[in-house]
Amino acid sequence: MYKVDLNSDLGESFGAYTIGMDEAVIAHVSSANVACGCHAGDPLVMDRTVAACQAAGVAVGAHPGFPDLAGFGRRNMNCSPKEVKAYIQYQMGALLAFTAAHGVKLQHVKPHGALYNMAAKDLDLALAIAQGVASVDRDVILLGLAGSQMLEAGRQTGLRVASEVFADRAYQADGSLVPRSRPGAVIHDPEEAISRTVRMVTQGRVTAITGEEVSIDAHSICVHGDNPSAVEFVRRIRARLEEEGAAIVPIAQIV
Amino acid sequence: MYKVDLNSDLGESFGAYTIGMDEAVIAHVSSANVACGCHAGDPLVMDRTVAACQAAGVAVGAHPGFPDLAGFGRRNMNCSPKEVKAYIQYQMGALLAFTAAHGVKLQHVKPHGALYNMAAKDLDLALAIAQGVASVDRDVILLGLAGSQMLEAGRQTGLRVASEVFADRAYQADGSLVPRSRPGAVIHDPEEAISRTVRMVTQGRVTAITGEEVSIDAHSICVHGDNPSAVEFVRRIRARLEEEGAAIVPIAQIV
Amino acid sequence: MYKVDLNSDLGESFGAYTIGMDEAVIAHVSSANVACGCHAGDPLVMDRTVAACQAAGVAVGAHPGFPDLAGFGRRNMNCSPKEVKAYIQYQMGALLAFTAAHGVKLQHVKPHGALYNMAAKDLDLALAIAQGVASVDRDVILLGLAGSQMLEAGRQTGLRVASEVFADRAYQADGSLVPRSRPGAVIHDPEEAISRTVRMVTQGRVTAITGEEVSIDAHSICVHGDNPSAVEFVRRIRARLEEEGAAIVPIAQIV
Amino acid sequence: MYKVDLNSDLGESFGAYTIGMDEAVIAHVSSANVACGCHAGDPLVMDRTVAACQAAGVAVGAHPGFPDLAGFGRRNMNCSPKEVKAYIQYQMGALLAFTAAHGVKLQHVKPHGALYNMAAKDLDLALAIAQGVASVDRDVILLGLAGSQMLEAGRQTGLRVASEVFADRAYQADGSLVPRSRPGAVIHDPEEAISRTVRMVTQGRVTAITGEEVSIDAHSICVHGDNPSAVEFVRRIRARLEEEGAAIVPIAQIV
Repeated sequence: MYKVDLNSDLGESFGAYTIGMDEAVIAHVSSANVACGCHAGDPLVMDRTVAACQAAGVAVGAHPGFPDLAGFGRRNMNCSPKEVKAYIQYQMGALLAFTAAHGVKLQHVKPHGALYNMAAKDLDLALAIAQGVASVDRDVILLGLAGSQMLEAGRQTGLRVASEVFADRAYQADGSLVPRSRPGAVIHDPEEAISRTVRMVTQGRVTAITGEEVSIDAHSICVHGDNPSAVEFVRRIRARLEEEGAAIVPIAQIV
Repeated sequence: MYKVDLNSDLGESFGAYTIGMDEAVIAHVSSANVACGCHAGDPLVMDRTVAACQAAGVAVGAHPGFPDLAGFGRRNMNCSPKEVKAYIQYQMGALLAFTAAHGVKLQHVKPHGALYNMAAKDLDLALAIAQGVASVDRDVILLGLAGSQMLEAGRQTGLRVASEVFADRAYQADGSLVPRSRPGAVIHDPEEAISRTVRMVTQGRVTAITGEEVSIDAHSICVHGDNPSAVEFVRRIRARLEEEGAAIVPIAQIV
Repeated sequence: MYKVDLNSDLGESFGAYTIGMDEAVIAHVSSANVACGCHAGDPLVMDRTVAACQAAGVAVGAHPGFPDLAGFGRRNMNCSPKEVKAYIQYQMGALLAFTAAHGVKLQHVKPHGALYNMAAKDLDLALAIAQGVASVDRDVILLGLAGSQMLEAGRQTGLRVASEVFADRAYQADGSLVPRSRPGAVIHDPEEAISRTVRMVTQGRVTAITGEEVSIDAHSICVHGDNPSAVEFVRRIRARLEEEGAAIVPIAQIV
Repeated sequence: MYKVDLNSDLGESFGAYTIGMDEAVIAHVSSANVACGCHAGDPLVMDRTVAACQAAGVAVGAHPGFPDLAGFGRRNMNCSPKEVKAYIQYQMGALLAFTAAHGVKLQHVKPHGALYNMAAKDLDLALAIAQGVASVDRDVILLGLAGSQMLEAGRQTGLRVASEVFADRAYQADGSLVPRSRPGAVIHDPEEAISRTVRMVTQGRVTAITGEEVSIDAHSICVHGDNPSAVEFVRRIRARLEEEGAAIVPIAQIV
């Protein structure tokens, strides 16, 4: 039987500001990436989100980002590896307080936004992240882009790593994502996105934008809960994966 | 043999901003209250401060405050108990990442500034703090003002509590501090401050500003490292306490 | 002909976070209170909001609050009058950059949330606000709660003041609002709220919760755009006021 | 008679945190770049700094930076030109409140740290800055690195521009600074730094690190007040410039 994780970013609300349809999406995913109060989230939101994950049986991961609330962690920042390591430790620790309070284990860490993208290509930055995670808890899984430097850094650091794929993104022949700036980078047809994902999960293969067949590890699929149609897509992709014989389970049961 | 702890607030620097003579004061104290990145401190400073405590054999405590960097956590904020509980959890967790990374145990939590003062008198707020601490780690000691609601809350919550006294502050007949707004609130003569402290430690008594003898638990003495004369005072009070037969030990060895 | 202003808080979004139905409500009001980047709002939001007001012919006011984004400026903070004066100057100045860029005049300043409520009762705080406004631009109107210390402070400082009333709040015999903690504080029936408002505008009178007839200056009515029914209420109250012979005009045309 | 401005970054303290010897350095400079509360500074510090400049007859400029207090504005951030324009407007406006309150004119804008360095090479970013300044007040001077894209952007936007030189930095044959990462980038001998500066001011020439003679506009010299020896250097360079026949005047009297 195939096994795959569905992960989604949750707990990104802040104070009076609500973002994301957390209640709806939590019913369909197996792992949650919980914002840690730097690029998004706040202590009350973190508490509420971990409680909701605990109640729904969804595994909890930390989703640390750059300290840039105004930019939602989406803007590249030229932080040193030493700073990034400390930011990872800080945010991971902050979330650990809430997992302790709710009696759940922290399953994974997945960096957010600009930090995720920068570390996918920059081994020094990726090593800073991996070492930050390992220094706090060596049993936590590092979740990163399939084929990226983040996974390489996790392996070098002795962490378990999990490989993330995107249902709605085109891939290049070397297994990397087609940059969003290029035509065809995003798969807009939901059915096509689902079919591609099923193939990544059941065959470990994806067709590159230039036609080549590429091997890919699909431990976890990133899905979104920004709006009703996004949530509907999550419901559909989950249903199809299950029809095709895949069990949706947290990544700790896969890697 | 008498035993008493000397505690000081450390790690209050932030980014390019340096405050406090941490290196000098750390040589003389037995416990450090480490700022957690909300009213002061940042992830790099926390890392550096915990490392310095580890190297010096100084016990590490969390020093959570209101999320008010501009006011250094000294301004009363009307946060709900639920918010305060989550703030305590968040900041305590963040520091736990660094104690884990440096292989030391988190000894205590001592709230900072306005939060400390408000919780000394407000049992609901104090219970929120105590419950926040207990939810993350029941073995951590709650350090608060002698005779305050904070200690009462810690006891009600099942935490070990430690009672803090001030060398340079006058006390009222009920054991509370004379408010700073009143004449005589601060003891300016170092020798008098030291003598009073020695008596609190060795006899468990202090003379109130109105002349009465008051019983007081002096588990820990709060000292400061803001400037050279403050550090010199710490050196002197420590020497005198040792001459009088008191061992300076972390609070975990006292309560 | 009666004249009255309808004011609403706008520009409270922040970065990736959207709050309020600004586009819908702006069609119905005559004055906007624009958040200034401390309790809410950010530079891009301020720019966009002032541009929208300029296009819609809505007068622009500054809506300064405590520096508490996490609490949306709704939590009392014990800031000194000197701090509050500087916060007002800072936020008012920041908005003036955008009014200058869009070629509109800053009409008024209305403090937000906890600062508004605290200054309504605390003359020292209210004077700090009024002096902050006057130090930057003596021609700007101070908008505050009818009968409050804020208006008194504005008069003492030589500013024009405008008196704000609430359609959905009950009043006490002394003209102050019934605190939200008391039963009957909020008028839930829209029709009753509208009738009371019409009477405040056309007769300058409101019936207190204890039955007395109270005189009240209704220069401006505070309305909200949080959700579709709030916007619908604004549309209705505006229509009724116009039916009753009131012109909806910015406060600069009233005081 | 030669005329040159001495400018220094002032008002970088924040809340309880003090940085820079503002009182000492203000006696020696003709223009101050005042931090605006984003990378450094806060409303009280801005008020105090503008007051001190007014008292000392020092011209006031805005010193806007990236919204990165933790990094003191020294870390590159990938903000869009639209964001940067709004950040400039916001910070410039905020400072204008304090110049209005103290009855002084805002003389110039000089971006800080990473923003300064990025805009020196990136015309789009520099145009965003220049357009931000011009949208608020077309009479304000844009102060930037000699020969940089910032000055080009200022000219294209119709602003007066002033060209800044560094006493302690080596130059390349094209008039740009030798990057700090290269050997010889910083001139460590104060006497040599002073001689080079005198020559830049009186002859408009500097010798490049590769030996060529380079033309350079030295409208303003950047000096620092971080520590006693920096302040002593400012005193010396001013004395020498005056001995050599240069008048130290604000840039508004030069460009």
